[in-house]
Amino acid sequence: MKLIVGNKNYSSWSLRGWLAAKQSGLHFEELTVPIYGEGWADTKREMGEVQPSSGKVPVLWDDDTVIWDSLAIMEFLADKVGRDRFWPKDDSARGMARAMVAEMHSGFMSLRRELPMNVRKRIALQQVSDATKHDIVRILTLWAEARARFGQGGPFLFGTFGAADIFYAPVVSRFVTYGVGVPGFAQTYMEAIWEHDWMQEWVAASEEEDWVIEQFEVEPAE
Amino acid sequence: MKLIVGNKNYSSWSLRGWLAAKQSGLHFEELTVPIYGEGWADTKREMGEVQPSSGKVPVLWDDDTVIWDSLAIMEFLADKVGRDRFWPKDDSARGMARAMVAEMHSGFMSLRRELPMNVRKRIALQQVSDATKHDIVRILTLWAEARARFGQGGPFLFGTFGAADIFYAPVVSRFVTYGVGVPGFAQTYMEAIWEHDWMQEWVAASEEEDWVIEQFEVEPAE
Repeated sequence: MKLIVGNKNYSSWSLRGWLAAKQSGLHFEELTVPIYGEGWADTKREMGEVQPSSGKVPVLWDDDTVIWDSLAIMEFLADKVGRDRFWPKDDSARGMARAMVAEMHSGFMSLRRELPMNVRKRIALQQVSDATKHDIVRILTLWAEARARFGQGGPFLFGTFGAADIFYAPVVSRFVTYGVGVPGFAQTYMEAIWEHDWMQEWVAASEEEDWVIEQFEVEPAE
Repeated sequence: MKLIVGNKNYSSWSLRGWLAAKQSGLHFEELTVPIYGEGWADTKREMGEVQPSSGKVPVLWDDDTVIWDSLAIMEFLADKVGRDRFWPKDDSARGMARAMVAEMHSGFMSLRRELPMNVRKRIALQQVSDATKHDIVRILTLWAEARARFGQGGPFLFGTFGAADIFYAPVVSRFVTYGVGVPGFAQTYMEAIWEHDWMQEWVAASEEEDWVIEQFEVEPAE
């Protein structure tokens, strides 16, 4: 299998796909394509020409199977290695985890637009829009609910590391980058994510990249 | 189980959740809440108070499990009745179906905004934006690819009716409503969806509703 990811510093969906590939325990080759920077338009066109890929990252290649979405990649890998490696065994926990992951997949647009992932940078946040505040409160509410109801078995959202953590890991990175103030339980959870070996590996790789994308390096407006 | 859906005429995500519930073969009660119309703000607030629901439809209740996203609902039901009822058995077909469903779940924003679902209405479309044209071409490309590579076993995207059809059924309704011109293979596929018993049941129910939401009844601008 081959996983195509974008810049580790900027590409939040790539982080999700990459963590899913790690979690599968399967061997995969990794190919990084710098997004947004010089040559991205060409790369995107070439990727789009490989039908039916959408020209976005991440993309998983498995022989003649091409999977061009991070959630689909995770589910495809769960099909291979067994659902329990990604999702809680308990029905209620799994139901909530599935809904949280799906909500992340289609939502939180304001947070994603206003606080783009920038793993290696620290930016003092002066002010955020009401829509982004709403997104942050919603995420903290979901984290609190998951941790309180289903988090007994470990430090992650549903105890052990799984699909929900994979999908919210880029949010943890954003909260770190922009110094978003969070309550103690969330701080503890974020530390568990941040100290996870794979997250540390991703962070180290992001620091070694020498691409700088100007549009993601501007201080947020006050 | 109880499934909360919005107006059958307007709520495309509800149609997805409802088709998934039908496809599961499990018994479920159905509760319709009129969205956007009078009282929707109150209903939404009440639904939002039932943590951790997001105040959106559809929502599946299964004892103490609350699942508030159509894709999560489908996967939760697939967990119950077996993946094969929703997803192709073949790895490559399933990989593509998963990617198509995920792309629908998070994408095609222009089409969704510009051509809102309106099952019972026919609106002569004068002009659409380039972004919506792009969405339409992308969808037709995906349909063509799925039908050509994996559609041998029946008239649906991957042969027999499944997850991908459930997720693209509201698109079929939009194409019918707005008279979007499509090539022959897509016309044939759309007829298979439209004539499906469950789709006919949904269409009939939409015609019996007496809610009219003004914002979705305006002719598109030329």
